[in-house]
Amino acid sequence: MVYVIKVGGNVIDNPALLEQFLADFAAIPGKKILIHGGGKIATRIGDKLGIQSQYVNGRRITDAETIDVVTMVYGGLVNKQIVAKLQAKGCNAIGLTGADANIIPAAKRPVKETDYGFVGDITTEQVQTAPVKLLLDAGFTPVFSPLTHDGAGQILNTNADTIASSLAIALSAHYAVRLIYCFEKKGVLRDASDDNAVINLIDRGIYQSLLAEGVLSDGILPKLENAFAAIESGVKEVLIGHADDVRKNTTDAVAGTLIC
Amino acid sequence: MVYVIKVGGNVIDNPALLEQFLADFAAIPGKKILIHGGGKIATRIGDKLGIQSQYVNGRRITDAETIDVVTMVYGGLVNKQIVAKLQAKGCNAIGLTGADANIIPAAKRPVKETDYGFVGDITTEQVQTAPVKLLLDAGFTPVFSPLTHDGAGQILNTNADTIASSLAIALSAHYAVRLIYCFEKKGVLRDASDDNAVINLIDRGIYQSLLAEGVLSDGILPKLENAFAAIESGVKEVLIGHADDVRKNTTDAVAGTLIC
Repeated sequence: MVYVIKVGGNVIDNPALLEQFLADFAAIPGKKILIHGGGKIATRIGDKLGIQSQYVNGRRITDAETIDVVTMVYGGLVNKQIVAKLQAKGCNAIGLTGADANIIPAAKRPVKETDYGFVGDITTEQVQTAPVKLLLDAGFTPVFSPLTHDGAGQILNTNADTIASSLAIALSAHYAVRLIYCFEKKGVLRDASDDNAVINLIDRGIYQSLLAEGVLSDGILPKLENAFAAIESGVKEVLIGHADDVRKNTTDAVAGTLIC
Repeated sequence: MVYVIKVGGNVIDNPALLEQFLADFAAIPGKKILIHGGGKIATRIGDKLGIQSQYVNGRRITDAETIDVVTMVYGGLVNKQIVAKLQAKGCNAIGLTGADANIIPAAKRPVKETDYGFVGDITTEQVQTAPVKLLLDAGFTPVFSPLTHDGAGQILNTNADTIASSLAIALSAHYAVRLIYCFEKKGVLRDASDDNAVINLIDRGIYQSLLAEGVLSDGILPKLENAFAAIESGVKEVLIGHADDVRKNTTDAVAGTLIC
C-alpha cells in the first residue's frame, strides 16, 4: 500500500501541530507521499513584500508577483523546512514540485470571466509516475509543494488537494493507494453537532442511504463526491480524517472515514 | 564523464545571461549536475522584507531571519525557476537542496571570533552519493541550491563552490568527474591585462613553472589551490572558465583552463 497524504494550512501554520504531525507521518512504515499547502505563510510574506493577495470567490489570483511569492514560500521555505524536520525524524524525505523531473505538467487556466493568472490545471494522464516510483522503490519519501509547470518555463500554482488526488490516481497504475485528506474534523459525521459521531466506513450503498436519511452536512458533500471520483479512477481507498489521527488512519483500525 | 557545474550570481541575476547559460547547459549530452548561487536576489528580497544582510569580512551572517530568506530564495524561487526553464529546454532537471534525501549533511559552523549563524560546514565523506547516482543513472539532472541541513531539523546556508567541490569529490568514487567553475573570465590568464591570454592546460608541473615565472594574479591562486585539492581527492579534472563557454568546456577542445 502507498499512502498519499495531504495536509493543509491549519497544520502548516501551527508549529506545535506541525511538529506532532511530522512525527506521526515519519512513523508510518512503508511507502508514503506528503502533499502540503501553506497559504497563510505566503499571504503573510506577500503582505510584507507589499504584494496584496487578491481573491475571487475565495480563490487566490496568482499574478506575476504572487507566483514568485508562492514559488519561494511553498517550494522553498515550507517544503525545505518540512524535509529537514522529517530527516531529523528518520524519514528520508525529498522535496519536490510538479516541475521537478517533469512529474506534474499542467496547463495555465484559460481566461474566461476571471483571469486566475498563473494557475495550473492538471490532466491526470499527464502525471509522470516513473520518477515518483523510482524514489518510492528506493526508500525515499517524496514531499510535494502545490506547484506545477507549463513545460515552457513557467511555474504554476495548483491546488494541493488536486495534486494529491492526481498523484494518487496516477500511482494506482502501480500500487494499491490509500489517499488521505487531513482536515479539521475527525471524519464524516453522522451528526454535524457531535464531533465524535464519525462514520468509519462509507461505500456507494452506504452513501446513498446517508443521502436518503439527509444526515450529511452540505460542506462534506463535495469532499465525498471527489473521493468517489478518485476511487472510480483507480484509487483503492480514500480516507477523510483529522491530522492528529494520521498514524492510525494508515492502519486497518481507522479513526476517520474510509471511503471505498 | 559526469560534469559538475557551478554557476554564480552574476549569471543568475541577469535574465538574458541565465537564459543563454541554461540553453547551453541543457545541450550538454550525458550526466551532469548544476549548482547555483543567487546571493543578490536574496539580498534584494531580504531588503524588501526589512531584513538587513550583514557581512563580516565579505561573508554573509546567516541569522534566523536570513536563513528563512535564503531557504525561500535559493531553494524555492531560483531553484524552481531554473528547473522549469531547463525542463522547457528538454533537460529533465530535478531541483534539490542538501537536505533532500539527506544528500549533504552539514555541521553548523562553531562560534569563534564571529558567529556566522546558520552556516553549514560540509565533511565530504558524509555526502550521500546513492540518491544522486540513482537520479543520474535514471537520466535526471540534479540542480542544487546552496543549502544543507544539520540532521536535527535545521536548514543551513553553505557556499555553492564548496557544495560543488564536495559533490564532485564524492561522486568521483563512482564516475570520472569534471568539475567546472563558471566565473567572469575565460580562464586562468597568462597576462591579467589580456582577457584572451587563457592558459588551456595546467598540471602540477606547469603550475610550478607559472609560479616561478610570477605571471599568475593573486586572485586566481586560491582557485587553483582548491582545484588541485579536488584533484588530489579524486576529481579527474577541474575546469575554470566563462559561463558563455560552458558547452565548449565539456568537450576536449576547452575554451577555459583545464586543471588535471
